[in-house]
Amino acid sequence: MEKNAISMRGKHVLGLEYFSPEEIQLVLSTAKEMKTIIHRDIKKVPTLRGKSIVTVFYEPSTRTRTSFETAGKYLGADVVNITAGTSSIVKGESLRDTLLTVEAMGFDAIVMRHKQEGAAEYATKVVNHPVIINAGDGAHAHPSQGLLNLFTLLEHKGHLEGLKVAVLGDILHSRVARSDIWGMRKMGIELHFAGPKTLLPRFLSEEPGIVIHDRIEDAIKDADAIEVLRIQLERQKAGLFPSNREYARIFGINNERLALAKDDVLILHPGPMNKGLEISPYVAYGNHSAIQEQVQNGVAVRMALLTLVLTGGKQA
Amino acid sequence: MEKNAISMRGKHVLGLEYFSPEEIQLVLSTAKEMKTIIHRDIKKVPTLRGKSIVTVFYEPSTRTRTSFETAGKYLGADVVNITAGTSSIVKGESLRDTLLTVEAMGFDAIVMRHKQEGAAEYATKVVNHPVIINAGDGAHAHPSQGLLNLFTLLEHKGHLEGLKVAVLGDILHSRVARSDIWGMRKMGIELHFAGPKTLLPRFLSEEPGIVIHDRIEDAIKDADAIEVLRIQLERQKAGLFPSNREYARIFGINNERLALAKDDVLILHPGPMNKGLEISPYVAYGNHSAIQEQVQNGVAVRMALLTLVLTGGKQA
Amino acid sequence: MEKNAISMRGKHVLGLEYFSPEEIQLVLSTAKEMKTIIHRDIKKVPTLRGKSIVTVFYEPSTRTRTSFETAGKYLGADVVNITAGTSSIVKGESLRDTLLTVEAMGFDAIVMRHKQEGAAEYATKVVNHPVIINAGDGAHAHPSQGLLNLFTLLEHKGHLEGLKVAVLGDILHSRVARSDIWGMRKMGIELHFAGPKTLLPRFLSEEPGIVIHDRIEDAIKDADAIEVLRIQLERQKAGLFPSNREYARIFGINNERLALAKDDVLILHPGPMNKGLEISPYVAYGNHSAIQEQVQNGVAVRMALLTLVLTGGKQA
Repeated sequence: MEKNAISMRGKHVLGLEYFSPEEIQLVLSTAKEMKTIIHRDIKKVPTLRGKSIVTVFYEPSTRTRTSFETAGKYLGADVVNITAGTSSIVKGESLRDTLLTVEAMGFDAIVMRHKQEGAAEYATKVVNHPVIINAGDGAHAHPSQGLLNLFTLLEHKGHLEGLKVAVLGDILHSRVARSDIWGMRKMGIELHFAGPKTLLPRFLSEEPGIVIHDRIEDAIKDADAIEVLRIQLERQKAGLFPSNREYARIFGINNERLALAKDDVLILHPGPMNKGLEISPYVAYGNHSAIQEQVQNGVAVRMALLTLVLTGGKQA
Repeated sequence: MEKNAISMRGKHVLGLEYFSPEEIQLVLSTAKEMKTIIHRDIKKVPTLRGKSIVTVFYEPSTRTRTSFETAGKYLGADVVNITAGTSSIVKGESLRDTLLTVEAMGFDAIVMRHKQEGAAEYATKVVNHPVIINAGDGAHAHPSQGLLNLFTLLEHKGHLEGLKVAVLGDILHSRVARSDIWGMRKMGIELHFAGPKTLLPRFLSEEPGIVIHDRIEDAIKDADAIEVLRIQLERQKAGLFPSNREYARIFGINNERLALAKDDVLILHPGPMNKGLEISPYVAYGNHSAIQEQVQNGVAVRMALLTLVLTGGKQA
Repeated sequence: MEKNAISMRGKHVLGLEYFSPEEIQLVLSTAKEMKTIIHRDIKKVPTLRGKSIVTVFYEPSTRTRTSFETAGKYLGADVVNITAGTSSIVKGESLRDTLLTVEAMGFDAIVMRHKQEGAAEYATKVVNHPVIINAGDGAHAHPSQGLLNLFTLLEHKGHLEGLKVAVLGDILHSRVARSDIWGMRKMGIELHFAGPKTLLPRFLSEEPGIVIHDRIEDAIKDADAIEVLRIQLERQKAGLFPSNREYARIFGINNERLALAKDDVLILHPGPMNKGLEISPYVAYGNHSAIQEQVQNGVAVRMALLTLVLTGGKQA
């Protein structure tokens, strides 16, 4: 089959910079099939039966972790969760030793989140057998989030090439924004960034297809989609952010600002939302919002990733 | 089939006030079949294979959570646990958004506990697909506990109509007592309450079949069963409770007081017990105690509930 | 079949003092078969399908808990985890009541860790149906760790009888050392202990096959294997341990000291390691180290134990 000419079997999922457009395309088309499973009465396929997946999270996250766990279970895999907070395996133990330990237990895939940029790539140098799936490494990457954004756009717009997407907020520290840059640019999407001046990566403005705006209104103008990033409240304490009220007024997405975008503009948010801050409740639950869909697409994309890297093919 | 004339498929389990006597009867008869599974050598049926259940607990509880998890697994369902304490999905995220998130992931049932009365009912207004099962909402209701109490009584007494049950302790704040009021009254059981005066809902004394007693001895007299509620130690701090020693002396159930009830009186307790306070060890582990059985019946009742609301029928 | 003449069905796993050499042999030979499952593409056998296992950990441990959970899942069992830290089932509830509660839920095996010596044995007096597996009770025993040490030695050396093993560190408080004493002595292994003087159980020096050394070099001399125990940093605070730097200098295992042992000496460590303290990184990751293997063997040994006590036989 043409489509399966590319195999991703054994490929580590570190960041979309290491994905070819063809590989991204394969994930998206596989995810489309996977999404139908989530809607079935019997949400269980034997694709990954006998495969074992461990999630190792050094940073708290239930959304992403639950999403991977659910994806694995729908596919028939065994999933074991290790949380750094409650775990002696990771308390005072080096990352290397923890990785060697879970490898020794026989896991086929390690889904990991770590505060340190590059932690997932480091993991690939430590282990031999398991596939590493980066579920967030500091401000570096969150590839499955980038892929679910692409999947959501594709489902709604029918194509990716030539779309204009505005990404708003703390771009500098966002692994979601960084994953968008790699993923969306590869698929021919034009990116428009806006946010607090101190949190904009100005150096990006030299890149083709990326525009940094001073005013949020200019970024939104004629956008096919707007991704609203979550305010990281801890950055506010560091004095890099204006107050909540100011933020909502200057950068918050509300119906008024939405009107500047295309009529069929799509609203994305990685969640969890600070409603009334970066996004108004009207927009969050309005007609343009694809935020709940993103969560479901996240499960579908993770089912696709797990299937492709663990089996190479699709057997839905 | 006569018995399956009623279908509970898709019914939210919010409180026993929303259950007809026929529905309660259906749960109890289904639970009886389910209990046989727990005693099998192979405790696994495919009834809920391909169904996915999430537990979302905003208040700590392992007894109830583990019981639902175990019930789901015996029935072949996938179960994912989300605890508010360790979870970013619920930290700072609105209940609405958390519910929409887990709905999007494809779960068929959401088993939830929340400190706010009415939280489970609110959940039914937020989500479309999943069935909501209330595992405790503040002082309002804990329907599966009410049902396991009924199941335990029925198993021992052979009938429910006309039984006399004494419920002792902090009635005012107890969701267990409230679930008894709805459940037991519907099945024709007479309720006798006693406890610290400040914690008795006097207004209930107007209800038919409910008697509020000043002295614990009067409530116990000739009782078929005594349900001893757990002391909530945090209420003690609020000055609503006497000291531990006083409580044990005035309200604690011991062998002496037991003698006032019927010869075959059954002792119930929702657990975990404060032995030496509301209940003496002799009573807790004595011949009359059904406390350990209640736990097992809790698994059976939850298996019945999950089966009935997710499939409508019984396929053990 | 000769080998299955011994049945361990229903046997509680409390400590290796209660295992006959034949039983230890049966576990080791079963574990050998189990280890092949971990290397299969489809790591899933139906041996324990329909069996349910609960882990109840009063002390934090992810390594051991995850290992048992993974072992159970590879064998097709259902596994439910209860952690004391986050659990109301165990908070303020007596151990007896918690055990009765999980028994009532229908679990076939309770894997438990508790700070109190004898807790697992106590559990066998409380419950009727479930098998108790001790995953560590204070300083008393950690039998599955003792067994995985034996398995690792047997795999590398081809036999156990007559081996010389050095065990280094805080012998007095170590349940691992204690499990070695029972397990290794039964299999004819000679034990040589060394460590801080305040932490050596001098009374053991009267036992046949056990030698207590003043100098670590004497213990290591001609050893077939060296087990390096983990420093318990909390003991250091109690003034029983020298400083980190001193400890590394006097008791740490490095390449220089390794040279005193046999050429094919095997390095064991129960993990997690304090590298640079009790063990140098060169030794930990060097040619002689079997530390990562021990983790895998731990899964195999636990698969064997679960299979033998729950079914009596081997059906890989």
